[in-house]
Amino acid sequence: MTKSMTNAESPVEAPRWKCVCAFDGQFFKGWQSQVGGGTVQDEIEEGLTKIFDRRVKIHGSSRTDSGVHARGMVFHFDATWTPEPTRLEAALRSLLPSSIRVSPIRRAPPGFHARFSAVAKRYRYYLYQGWADPFSTSYCWSLKRSLDLEAMTAAADVLRGKHDFSSFAAFGGKELETPVRDLRALSVDRKGRKVIITAEADGFLYKMVRSLVGALVNVGSGKLTPDEIRRILEERRRREIIATAPPHGLFLEKVFYR
Amino acid sequence: MTKSMTNAESPVEAPRWKCVCAFDGQFFKGWQSQVGGGTVQDEIEEGLTKIFDRRVKIHGSSRTDSGVHARGMVFHFDATWTPEPTRLEAALRSLLPSSIRVSPIRRAPPGFHARFSAVAKRYRYYLYQGWADPFSTSYCWSLKRSLDLEAMTAAADVLRGKHDFSSFAAFGGKELETPVRDLRALSVDRKGRKVIITAEADGFLYKMVRSLVGALVNVGSGKLTPDEIRRILEERRRREIIATAPPHGLFLEKVFYR
Repeated sequence: MTKSMTNAESPVEAPRWKCVCAFDGQFFKGWQSQVGGGTVQDEIEEGLTKIFDRRVKIHGSSRTDSGVHARGMVFHFDATWTPEPTRLEAALRSLLPSSIRVSPIRRAPPGFHARFSAVAKRYRYYLYQGWADPFSTSYCWSLKRSLDLEAMTAAADVLRGKHDFSSFAAFGGKELETPVRDLRALSVDRKGRKVIITAEADGFLYKMVRSLVGALVNVGSGKLTPDEIRRILEERRRREIIATAPPHGLFLEKVFYR
Repeated sequence: MTKSMTNAESPVEAPRWKCVCAFDGQFFKGWQSQVGGGTVQDEIEEGLTKIFDRRVKIHGSSRTDSGVHARGMVFHFDATWTPEPTRLEAALRSLLPSSIRVSPIRRAPPGFHARFSAVAKRYRYYLYQGWADPFSTSYCWSLKRSLDLEAMTAAADVLRGKHDFSSFAAFGGKELETPVRDLRALSVDRKGRKVIITAEADGFLYKMVRSLVGALVNVGSGKLTPDEIRRILEERRRREIIATAPPHGLFLEKVFYR
């Protein structure tokens, strides 16, 4: 990380730090900083700004939507800190609301960027077959009915792999990047009346996980067949039958780096 | 329940119904109805009033404080309902927010009263030794430190049994009833970094469970010894060292009837 100090943007090159955090999305307007605040990024930046007594900007691995939760969001920031890193963590924890918890803060490897260095991400979506208890309803999609898990698994088999996922993204418009993603894992697991959908890919299009979940729930409810899912995937065009699952069942689990 | 219809207060004697409900206390100003609403009772009465198209009053087993949760609050109400009781339950569920869930509604036995027929109650309090994750902080007291569970268990042994619990209640003032309660269970159980305190008695004084928990946590933190707990119990007078644990770790688990 020691570089010459001729960089115009940061005349004094501060060390880079990597931090993993968890947050309860129901209390925030998503991850990304916005005018008026109320986002996770705003809260963390406010804490770091107090600690370092100067404006600290953080860079998150993912821009989770309002209401989406995270167990393993990663962010980085640049700052000079000479005491033990554990003391930085303790200082930040004490300044954050209990709805955000930071895990150990470590020096980032050279060239690390929370977003651009990520090679894969894992999300989990929690469904509940029935009426979830009041302590779980903020963390799952309570479906008030049973699902055909066999059909959902068959549909997941169709979706898994490297495909153009245009049919399972929230439009398109000015999309410059390729809509091809390698969905290396997509599983449907039952745990009591809970159903856990795990999705892992090299990257996800906008609202892709919630669209995949919406599609799988429609399969589980008998509104779509796995064969129709295959046709929709091949059409590479979003259709109305592909619902977007609500945000509060979704958790960003883990971000992978090389 | 069939009585003569000469009762001045209820000219038509409607059947009595018993219902168990769970609620997430963080979203309510406690159980008991109040001017301005926002309590669990207000929400349920509003739902029932819509269903029966007349003002329905419910009677709860316990008046839980603001922020306290319940898995097994019991209430009763009188109303004439001829379809299947399951349809009454479905109608009420659909009208309530997801932070309240009613369980099967059943005809109450003759003379049943949710509060006065109760013979015992069980509460659970959840502590966390460390920083609880953001999805649990609304449901436990996150203590950011370890506790001496052996000392806490010894103190619980002192408190268990039939005693005058004046030292572990929030005053006194116009208390007409006896402060003697039979605390037939008080246990301290560890589950990973969680510590679960279970208290069961024929009845509890005002803020008694939270005061017992506050005392036990002070023992677990080395601020009080089991012997001091015994002396404080015998003094039958509240002292400042007996802290009141915060409401959000407390759950009304179960109300017992004969």
